[in-house]
Amino acid sequence: MASTGSEASSRHLISFQEVQKHDQEGDCWLVVNGQVLDLSNFEHPGGAEIIIQHAGSDASTAFNRIHAPGILKGLAPEQFRGDVDQSSIPCPVNPKDLAEAESKEVPTPEGHPKPPLHSLIALHDFEDVARKTYSAKAYAFYSSGATDLVSLEANSQVHKRLLLRPRVLRNVRQIRTSRKILGFNSSAPFFVSPTAMAKLAHPDGEIAIAKGCGEKGIIQTISTNASFPLEDIVAAGLPGQPFFLQLYVNSERSKTEELLQSAHKLGIKAIFVTVDAPVPGKREADERIAAGNLTSAISGAVATNDKKGGGLGRVMARYIDSTLCWDDLAWIKKASGGLPIVLKGIQTAADAKKAAEHGVEGILLSNHGGCSLDTTQPAMLTLLEMHKACPEVFGQVEVYVDGGFNRGTDILKAIALGATAVGIGRPWLYAINYGQEGVEHVCDILTDELVTSMKLSGITDVDEAHPGMVNTAMVEPLIRSSEAHPWIAWTPKPRL
Amino acid sequence: MASTGSEASSRHLISFQEVQKHDQEGDCWLVVNGQVLDLSNFEHPGGAEIIIQHAGSDASTAFNRIHAPGILKGLAPEQFRGDVDQSSIPCPVNPKDLAEAESKEVPTPEGHPKPPLHSLIALHDFEDVARKTYSAKAYAFYSSGATDLVSLEANSQVHKRLLLRPRVLRNVRQIRTSRKILGFNSSAPFFVSPTAMAKLAHPDGEIAIAKGCGEKGIIQTISTNASFPLEDIVAAGLPGQPFFLQLYVNSERSKTEELLQSAHKLGIKAIFVTVDAPVPGKREADERIAAGNLTSAISGAVATNDKKGGGLGRVMARYIDSTLCWDDLAWIKKASGGLPIVLKGIQTAADAKKAAEHGVEGILLSNHGGCSLDTTQPAMLTLLEMHKACPEVFGQVEVYVDGGFNRGTDILKAIALGATAVGIGRPWLYAINYGQEGVEHVCDILTDELVTSMKLSGITDVDEAHPGMVNTAMVEPLIRSSEAHPWIAWTPKPRL
Amino acid sequence: MASTGSEASSRHLISFQEVQKHDQEGDCWLVVNGQVLDLSNFEHPGGAEIIIQHAGSDASTAFNRIHAPGILKGLAPEQFRGDVDQSSIPCPVNPKDLAEAESKEVPTPEGHPKPPLHSLIALHDFEDVARKTYSAKAYAFYSSGATDLVSLEANSQVHKRLLLRPRVLRNVRQIRTSRKILGFNSSAPFFVSPTAMAKLAHPDGEIAIAKGCGEKGIIQTISTNASFPLEDIVAAGLPGQPFFLQLYVNSERSKTEELLQSAHKLGIKAIFVTVDAPVPGKREADERIAAGNLTSAISGAVATNDKKGGGLGRVMARYIDSTLCWDDLAWIKKASGGLPIVLKGIQTAADAKKAAEHGVEGILLSNHGGCSLDTTQPAMLTLLEMHKACPEVFGQVEVYVDGGFNRGTDILKAIALGATAVGIGRPWLYAINYGQEGVEHVCDILTDELVTSMKLSGITDVDEAHPGMVNTAMVEPLIRSSEAHPWIAWTPKPRL
Amino acid sequence: MASTGSEASSRHLISFQEVQKHDQEGDCWLVVNGQVLDLSNFEHPGGAEIIIQHAGSDASTAFNRIHAPGILKGLAPEQFRGDVDQSSIPCPVNPKDLAEAESKEVPTPEGHPKPPLHSLIALHDFEDVARKTYSAKAYAFYSSGATDLVSLEANSQVHKRLLLRPRVLRNVRQIRTSRKILGFNSSAPFFVSPTAMAKLAHPDGEIAIAKGCGEKGIIQTISTNASFPLEDIVAAGLPGQPFFLQLYVNSERSKTEELLQSAHKLGIKAIFVTVDAPVPGKREADERIAAGNLTSAISGAVATNDKKGGGLGRVMARYIDSTLCWDDLAWIKKASGGLPIVLKGIQTAADAKKAAEHGVEGILLSNHGGCSLDTTQPAMLTLLEMHKACPEVFGQVEVYVDGGFNRGTDILKAIALGATAVGIGRPWLYAINYGQEGVEHVCDILTDELVTSMKLSGITDVDEAHPGMVNTAMVEPLIRSSEAHPWIAWTPKPRL
Repeated sequence: MASTGSEASSRHLISFQEVQKHDQEGDCWLVVNGQVLDLSNFEHPGGAEIIIQHAGSDASTAFNRIHAPGILKGLAPEQFRGDVDQSSIPCPVNPKDLAEAESKEVPTPEGHPKPPLHSLIALHDFEDVARKTYSAKAYAFYSSGATDLVSLEANSQVHKRLLLRPRVLRNVRQIRTSRKILGFNSSAPFFVSPTAMAKLAHPDGEIAIAKGCGEKGIIQTISTNASFPLEDIVAAGLPGQPFFLQLYVNSERSKTEELLQSAHKLGIKAIFVTVDAPVPGKREADERIAAGNLTSAISGAVATNDKKGGGLGRVMARYIDSTLCWDDLAWIKKASGGLPIVLKGIQTAADAKKAAEHGVEGILLSNHGGCSLDTTQPAMLTLLEMHKACPEVFGQVEVYVDGGFNRGTDILKAIALGATAVGIGRPWLYAINYGQEGVEHVCDILTDELVTSMKLSGITDVDEAHPGMVNTAMVEPLIRSSEAHPWIAWTPKPRL
Repeated sequence: MASTGSEASSRHLISFQEVQKHDQEGDCWLVVNGQVLDLSNFEHPGGAEIIIQHAGSDASTAFNRIHAPGILKGLAPEQFRGDVDQSSIPCPVNPKDLAEAESKEVPTPEGHPKPPLHSLIALHDFEDVARKTYSAKAYAFYSSGATDLVSLEANSQVHKRLLLRPRVLRNVRQIRTSRKILGFNSSAPFFVSPTAMAKLAHPDGEIAIAKGCGEKGIIQTISTNASFPLEDIVAAGLPGQPFFLQLYVNSERSKTEELLQSAHKLGIKAIFVTVDAPVPGKREADERIAAGNLTSAISGAVATNDKKGGGLGRVMARYIDSTLCWDDLAWIKKASGGLPIVLKGIQTAADAKKAAEHGVEGILLSNHGGCSLDTTQPAMLTLLEMHKACPEVFGQVEVYVDGGFNRGTDILKAIALGATAVGIGRPWLYAINYGQEGVEHVCDILTDELVTSMKLSGITDVDEAHPGMVNTAMVEPLIRSSEAHPWIAWTPKPRL
Repeated sequence: MASTGSEASSRHLISFQEVQKHDQEGDCWLVVNGQVLDLSNFEHPGGAEIIIQHAGSDASTAFNRIHAPGILKGLAPEQFRGDVDQSSIPCPVNPKDLAEAESKEVPTPEGHPKPPLHSLIALHDFEDVARKTYSAKAYAFYSSGATDLVSLEANSQVHKRLLLRPRVLRNVRQIRTSRKILGFNSSAPFFVSPTAMAKLAHPDGEIAIAKGCGEKGIIQTISTNASFPLEDIVAAGLPGQPFFLQLYVNSERSKTEELLQSAHKLGIKAIFVTVDAPVPGKREADERIAAGNLTSAISGAVATNDKKGGGLGRVMARYIDSTLCWDDLAWIKKASGGLPIVLKGIQTAADAKKAAEHGVEGILLSNHGGCSLDTTQPAMLTLLEMHKACPEVFGQVEVYVDGGFNRGTDILKAIALGATAVGIGRPWLYAINYGQEGVEHVCDILTDELVTSMKLSGITDVDEAHPGMVNTAMVEPLIRSSEAHPWIAWTPKPRL
Repeated sequence: MASTGSEASSRHLISFQEVQKHDQEGDCWLVVNGQVLDLSNFEHPGGAEIIIQHAGSDASTAFNRIHAPGILKGLAPEQFRGDVDQSSIPCPVNPKDLAEAESKEVPTPEGHPKPPLHSLIALHDFEDVARKTYSAKAYAFYSSGATDLVSLEANSQVHKRLLLRPRVLRNVRQIRTSRKILGFNSSAPFFVSPTAMAKLAHPDGEIAIAKGCGEKGIIQTISTNASFPLEDIVAAGLPGQPFFLQLYVNSERSKTEELLQSAHKLGIKAIFVTVDAPVPGKREADERIAAGNLTSAISGAVATNDKKGGGLGRVMARYIDSTLCWDDLAWIKKASGGLPIVLKGIQTAADAKKAAEHGVEGILLSNHGGCSLDTTQPAMLTLLEMHKACPEVFGQVEVYVDGGFNRGTDILKAIALGATAVGIGRPWLYAINYGQEGVEHVCDILTDELVTSMKLSGITDVDEAHPGMVNTAMVEPLIRSSEAHPWIAWTPKPRL
């Protein structure tokens, strides 16, 4: 207790390391919800042991499970030592190295047991469970979006503004949902959009996704920032199971060449080149929580804190080559041994057209799930923009969309408006909370919802879906069909 | 208490059957708001009896009537055994068989006495009382809508976006609200839209509706999934009281033929063929609560849980024939002995036109109360779409609308825009909370509101209502008048 | 205590008269927030007297001033006798007769002292204070609107959708706000719109308004349902102070003739004939609270409960003649000795035009403050509709607007769009909480805000206000300019 | 305690001076959250000293840090003396004179330590911290807006309705953000918009802003109502650091001449003449809190309470000359020795055009941060209006915008739509919470966000930004391009 006097004057920020020193009866500090409490002389009605077991540590979870916050009001002012310095708290997910991490489950917050998988009946249920059971860092990284979340929210809202126009009295007993994506069979018109570092959520990470996809006939696009080596993920699949690879080009281009050659050897079927993130967007929720020393097993990107914060999305993007441009596509094609190229992140009809001119096999209309530049339009609007500005491109490349797709109706609308398939991203990160089984359950839910939506719309094959099924009136006024501003004539004069 | 040690380690899910074993002093478990509490050693200030009476059961209702949730914070951690497995809780409405159920009132949650009927002055009052007094399952089944509730909410919101344009200084002392529906007298331009399993709410179920309608001169459409036999419902009516029958066609078509012949013999006046639900919509609130073994006395559909959940709306729809198509209408007509046919669930002008071409007597524009396919438009928009696309159909068939009608102003707008009558659905399920009297009170409220709205609009007969009374400007931009998309030329190429 | 057993079994509704019987130590019941508590054996920490003083009465106000609701959770179940029958509670304002009522102040709820008048700086402050200090009945009557409150809310929201376009660098030191209304001087372009029964709020009622208006040079329109005799109100004014009289025509027309002759003799300057309320609208908040036996000193209308509820707005309207039509205007003109006639409640350009054709001197565009027919448009939209459909009428009659005007900017927009003056209604009912002083303060606030708005808009005289100052783009799509529907050709065929 | 009886009867308002008399054991009053408590006989569980130390003073801060509000419910009615007269409370910031104030830090509310500067990663973080740590008066003055806050909210919302249209696959490694503003270098296309009395927030006030701007290459516009003398602020800058001066013209015009001459001598680079505030707007939050006797060191304006309230914005504007008009611009130009003139507060294209005709060097489109006239449009809409109505003006004067700019994307959109630079106002008042360092951090955040937004949009130099990058569809329907109303022909006839 000798140290009490000196710390008392340093109210405000106290490092967690300092708290850890007071870890015994008679000299007992705890952190509760960010506050440092000195309970050295506190008598708990339930016995001293209840307190002592948490001495020198963060007891928030145990506290919150039992007590209402107001109970702290009963403490004397001098029992409040100050606030813990958040930056000094060790990352909740802090594996010493990845090998070790693989062998033990990422701990979920105490007291929030997961409900049984069968009780989850919609994709939003998975997000709800993730919010309650993932570490704060994992949930922030997965769920966050750029700055003011305008695009993130627009992505899911846009589906509510596209109305379905169902036809009745048609025989809808037999339904066919299968599609070909770049020539490969998919049991339904959706695929796994790439997302980074799935192991933050579950030790099986991308492996679980690969196995679930194999079981359900869905194609997985593997992220360059996956937490498992590419060969391990591919090896987890069934014989002949198709995979795509998402590509961030490394400033050290030789590394990218190695990766593409490796992909080619592993039988990867296509390369999805990300084009909407030469630099990472600003994801504030992600930045506000310290990142552990995570490493991607593919790109080698390491997540560490820097002076801007702990944004996983940002620090893992440091190696990305922001000079990448159209002329580099030929190099990627060649380095991959001629694999089909899909551009991920096309956001205007003008770039869709340019992509087709460059001979790519597909484009994924996307605003990066609302994580890159905020206030960009949802992919569904870019799809409509293409119909206005360059309908011919639908005949030249396959067109995919992603961002905010959570329902069978969402998927049906995209297909009806000309998309070949829909990319599903975040939901898998919430699904693997239940490992492979969770992935399969999400596939089942989406397919089941799609089947119901098709029957209720009066069609029996996804290939019958057509634009007349969708009333786009609510979003039409937003569609721009030209790169020039429609009524501002001014153009910039480049600086001399 | 011997079992305490072993269960303590199995924190998380505990079956309700396990809870039931601890039902005595000294070994006393209770469920409160989903948590399993071990109160074996707990001393209640009000005496032990208060606790013991609930030993081994769910005491949530009694608890919540007296205590604030926070009081549980005072318990020690070991007194929280875990969470009860929701799926193991017996259905709150679990009649062994229907005959037995008829003899006893469905229990309402304790502690929520119904306010006196005369204090309910608007339809939303009935829903408020139902929310508080119905079993959770009954309320979920009645009130739920498909997936994201977009259509459910749009149904009621659309009326707030249609403005009335009242004229003044007209003699409005005498008002006439009566209409003919398919040639049958109705005291007001609304009727009972079919809804399933009214007995979940009140033992008199559809019988109470029949009697109330008889008293008030309103026509009831009986659901194929009614909880009473068709003949009993008809017999409850006054001599000559007209009834309509809603029809789900059974995959075993002979059963449907029997039903139609029976309907014909019982003097049913018209058949409302449901065409917007070849499969049931996904009503999540309904799915999340276990269904009891309910049986419809007409269709014989039995409500039981399956692996997707306990959705009454879904499991009771299993017998429905999803191959039903336009050509089958002639068969229905013939099997019913030539009764007038009304198609319930028309959602586009194109199908309205097709219905008229097939010679039906009426169409009910409906999105199934927002319970079938989500993000479809409210019936009022389909009504407007018909004016744009096929105004001639108003001269060929009678046109009805339903979904979200709760006010006299709502009804007046529909009539002014050309509907012959308005279907009222859910409100009757909340009205029968008060039996026949409740049904009559709802009739009175709607008619009274309609009379007031007519007077304040400056008309004296519903037949004087006309489109100029309604400012439709706010919804007009949403109206589509063609089955083709207005500006996307692309059409799907059917799969080879 | 002998009666305890029998009442205990009748849980649910208990009449207030029954509660009143248990009014002593040892047999002590109280009503607290609608619940009947049996505190016969309860020991209050502060002494028995604290409880006994409220025995047999409603102690909610005293209770709520001291206690949080949660404290009741500590009572035993048997101490909750049931709920009090709201319909049995005597009206909080129940003057034996009006003469007696005049001599004592209407009680405000205990414990809510009014803040000092000078601390109220905007009209919404007055409503806030009224909500806290008026009886529930008075506040419900004054603040309520028809059914779903769509029009009530639209009235105030519309001003936020009309943008001001200020001009700069003009000399705005001297400002002139005065206007002539029907030839009579008004210090500012607003007047008192009629409202009923001001005495519910303050014993000086309409007298206070008359005196405040006299002091500030504002014209008062006296309601037919005023709580004071017409001659008393007029007598309270300054010599030469102009008054208008609002008229509901009585089914016994001779009574109306007497009133008009009396008005003429008293020097009333114009008759505002209400044309939008042949029957009263349905104001649910008003209906839900029992009305006392109030009587209007002018119309003689008596407010009593009936089986529909206690709606003051409704029961006081029973005498109104719903046969009143255009041809009756000549009779009113004659009976009033030729006074100028203003039609209050015009809601379409068509009726504005018809009014001009009938030779009235003015029209007050109004939806009755959202209290008559719900989902009608705000007066500001009718003003714009007139510009589209019948701009010539602005040259034939004076045009006023009311409903939802609370700010100087609101008034400025109406004047800029062609209104001669703006009617202010509810704010006076909240202002007289402070008697005449409150009325004057509201005049000062509105005038001060108007002056500021004019200076910041760059004009110095209200007569300079012009349509170009207002950007009406947000509401324009709602404006209809024809009585026929713009794109539905169908017209009703009258019943034979 | 002798005085107790008499004060008890004067419940309601009690002056703070009265409270101060009861400042000892046995006669101990305190103010807690506006209520006057008599705790003379109260026994605090923690000992009498805890109470006595606050006797006769406002103990709200200490109370709220420890107790939940509900604890007061335990006091007896007679322990509530009444409410303290807010107007009698000494201003929390009440420096005897400015010199003295300079020497001590403005106290921040106890118990809210500021988080470390590096943990603030967005501009809204600074506002959040200010809300918690500034005195109520300072925060109200800085954050408030005119009347209903329609313009204040629209200012920030408008950026969410302008969509960015990013182009991909461009080399964006090197970014250039610098601009010339009136010929002076700025490291980024934004500058400090003038705001008054920065010392309320931090003792270094405008000095800290000057130093931070110097460090970061940003230009500061000094307010006429700055809390430091002009020469001191300029002296705080680096050699050659450019400053602009905002000007309110004084009714005593000689004072303005002196100020302009002084500005000229000090090397001020331009005069921003405020034209949208001939009188102050009504900022209610500011009015509701008493102002201390603050004085501007430049204008000499003194902030004191008057009968309308304590609005700093209003009382400090008393000296402003409301006769200022276009012809006075020549006098300002001359008095300043020919400095460039920028008109701050242009709100219509018509005035933008007029400004150009009067030969000014720049215009700042602004609605005064929503503080002047409410329901005026955001500057971004005026910018668009200029493109419709007077695009040629962009070639004649420099055009700036301010109001609600908080993000790099906001700035990028304004530049793309033709603005030369963006004014940032309130954020600096929140930044100086951390002194000069805070100012620099805000510069860094904005520049960093701008760089990211440019890279993600596919441009590398602000001069490349062009209108085609912005989808303005959502706001276009609001743009008016003429001073006349587009469809109302009526024009006012001036009073004779």
